Amino acid sequence: MPIATMPQRVRAWRDTGGPEIQWRRLDVCDGDALGQLIRETQPRAVVHFGEQRSAPFSMVDRQHAVMTQVQNVTGTINLLYALRDHAPDCHLVKLGTMGEYGTPNIDIEEGFIEIEHNGRRDRLPYPKTPGSFYHLSKVHDSHNIHFACRIWGLRATDLNQGVVYGCETEETALHRTLATRFDYDVIWGTVLNRFCVQAAMGQPLTVYGRGGQTRGFLDVRDTVQCVRISVEHPPERGEYRVFNQFTEQFSVRQLAELVHEARAAHGLSTTIQHVQNPRVESEEHYYNAKHQALLDLGLEPHLLRRTLIDSMIQTVERHRRRVDLDVLQKPNVDWRLGHTRTSRRAEATVA
Amino acid sequence: MPIATMPQRVRAWRDTGGPEIQWRRLDVCDGDALGQLIRETQPRAVVHFGEQRSAPFSMVDRQHAVMTQVQNVTGTINLLYALRDHAPDCHLVKLGTMGEYGTPNIDIEEGFIEIEHNGRRDRLPYPKTPGSFYHLSKVHDSHNIHFACRIWGLRATDLNQGVVYGCETEETALHRTLATRFDYDVIWGTVLNRFCVQAAMGQPLTVYGRGGQTRGFLDVRDTVQCVRISVEHPPERGEYRVFNQFTEQFSVRQLAELVHEARAAHGLSTTIQHVQNPRVESEEHYYNAKHQALLDLGLEPHLLRRTLIDSMIQTVERHRRRVDLDVLQKPNVDWRLGHTRTSRRAEATVA
Repeated sequence: MPIATMPQRVRAWRDTGGPEIQWRRLDVCDGDALGQLIRETQPRAVVHFGEQRSAPFSMVDRQHAVMTQVQNVTGTINLLYALRDHAPDCHLVKLGTMGEYGTPNIDIEEGFIEIEHNGRRDRLPYPKTPGSFYHLSKVHDSHNIHFACRIWGLRATDLNQGVVYGCETEETALHRTLATRFDYDVIWGTVLNRFCVQAAMGQPLTVYGRGGQTRGFLDVRDTVQCVRISVEHPPERGEYRVFNQFTEQFSVRQLAELVHEARAAHGLSTTIQHVQNPRVESEEHYYNAKHQALLDLGLEPHLLRRTLIDSMIQTVERHRRRVDLDVLQKPNVDWRLGHTRTSRRAEATVA
Repeated sequence: MPIATMPQRVRAWRDTGGPEIQWRRLDVCDGDALGQLIRETQPRAVVHFGEQRSAPFSMVDRQHAVMTQVQNVTGTINLLYALRDHAPDCHLVKLGTMGEYGTPNIDIEEGFIEIEHNGRRDRLPYPKTPGSFYHLSKVHDSHNIHFACRIWGLRATDLNQGVVYGCETEETALHRTLATRFDYDVIWGTVLNRFCVQAAMGQPLTVYGRGGQTRGFLDVRDTVQCVRISVEHPPERGEYRVFNQFTEQFSVRQLAELVHEARAAHGLSTTIQHVQNPRVESEEHYYNAKHQALLDLGLEPHLLRRTLIDSMIQTVERHRRRVDLDVLQKPNVDWRLGHTRTSRRAEATVA
C-alpha cells in the first residue's frame, strides 16, 4: 500500500479530529537523546515498539544476528535508564513476543510459573526456548526489564504478542493517508497476510513443512486494543507483569485451510503446497498458551472470521498491480545455513 | 602481584617444560578475526573466558551496562558462528556463572529442571533471576548457546561457576613469572580475597548488610580442574549441558567468621564490620544448589581449610607494600544509583 511520510500521517490524523501527536525521529540506541526525550516529556506511559522485529532477518548471517540483539537490547537498556533517571513512575509497555516461550510440552503461562520442586515452591520466570536470534533478543529484554523493576522499582508490562494479521485498524481506516505497512514477504510478512496475497494472486498457499506449527494469533485491531488496555491499567511500582497478547491458536495448516474455504465459498479454488521448512522447529507439537489477563481487563477479541479473510483478500485485490510477486518467490532464510546458501533448499518442494 | 606480560609468561611456561602455548591477541567482538582463528587452528575444544566479568562494573552506569551486555553477547555469538562455519564438531566450554540463577526459593538444578504442570511434563531451562547487568549478560549467552546447539548441532558445556578464591594454581606456582591477578577491590575482587587482604592489613572485614547472602564457592585450582574435566568429557553433537562449578556453599558472614577464626588460631584479633549493602539482594534466603555433575566426572575438590586462608594471608603479607588500601576504602557501586552518587550511602555503617 502507498504509505505517506510520517509528517503527512500526523497531519492527516489531526485532520480527522484525533488528539495531537508530536512526532520526533530518534534512535533508541542513542541513550543521551532518549534520556533527554523522557526528561522533557515526562510521560505517564511509554509504549516501546522500537526494535528489529523479524526472525528471518536475524537468521540471515552473523552480522544480522549481532545487529538484532545489540540494537534491541541496547535500546531497551537505554530506555530503562532513562525511566530510572527521569520518570521512575512512568509505565513501560514493551512489545515482547509469544515466540519467547518456544513450544514446550507443558501449558504456557503468562510470564511466570509456579513451580513445586523437592517439597518447596516458588513463582519464577517461565523457562524460555525461543526459536531465532530475534526471539532470543526479546528474551534478553524480558530478563533486563524484570531486573530493572526489581532493583529500581520501575513498573512494566511485557506484551508477549502472537502473530498479527490484518491490514487496518479503526484509526488507519479513517483516511487513506493513514494506511500503514501490510507485509507479506518472507522477511517481514506474517503467514496469514502471505496466504491472502497468494490467494488474491491465484498462487498456491505455501505451508512450511507439515504445517502443524501452532501459534497464537491476533487481529491487528486487537493489538491496538491490548496496548490501550495495558496503558489504562498500569501495574504497581516495582511490578513486572507479562500479558500473552493473542486471541486464538491456529496451526499454519489450519490457516491455509481457512483461506482455502473462504475462497471456496465464492466458488474459487486454491491449492495448498507444502514446501521444505527453512526453519528449525517442531512441525507437530503440544501447544496450549494462556491468554486470560487481557480478557480479564476487558479485551473484546476480533476473532478470525471468513469475512475478515475476504476483506483482506479484497484489499490485496484493490492493490494487485502493486503486489511484488518476486518477494513471494524469493528463497527464504534457512535457519541452518543463513541467507546466502539457501536458494536450492528453500525452493525444493517436499509435498 | 607483579604480573609479567603475556609473551613473558608464555616463555616462562615453556621454560618450566609445559606444552607449547601459542598466544595471539584478538578481540572476540571482531567476528572476522575470530572466524579466521577458528578456521586456521581447527580446535577440538574452545574455552571461552573472553568476557567482561564484573557485576559492579556493569552497574556503574548506563554505558557500563550496555558495554557489558553488548561485548559479552557479541563475542559469544561471533564464536558460535565461527564454530558453525569452521569447526562444527568442536566442543565449546563457556564460562557462565552461578549468579545466573539468583536465589530462588527452590533447589537450584544444573541448567535444566523437570517441571510437572497441569498433568504434563517437560525438561526446560532453569528459570533465571540474575542480580546484575553482568549476570544478565551470562543468561543471554546461555540462551544463545542453547539455541545454537539446538539448530546447528553444536556441542557446548556452560560452566556456571561460583565465586572463586585463591592466589595460585599448581601451574602458576611453578614460576613467579606465571603469577596472575589477585583481585581484592570492589570492582574486580571477590569476597574471600578481600577479607584476606583486610585481615593481613589489620583492617576490619567488611560484610555487606547482614551477610546472610549465600553462594557457591570454589578454589581457583578447582576452576582449572573443572575446565580440564569438561574438555576431557565432551558432550554429544547438539548437546548443551550445564555444570554448576563450585564445591561448597557459604554465606558471606560465615566466610568472615572463618577468616576471623583463622587469625584467632594465631592469637590475632580481627573485627567484622557490617556495612550498608550497595547491592539489591536478599540478605537471608534459601539456597541449595546442586553441583553433582563435575564430581561424577572425577572432580576432587580442594575444600576451604584454615591452611588455605593462612596461605592466602601470607601471600598478601609478602606483597603488603604493594597493597592499595584506597581500593578497599573506595565507595562501592550502588545497585540503585550507580557509581557517581554513592559515596555517602556506601560509607554509612549499618551495624
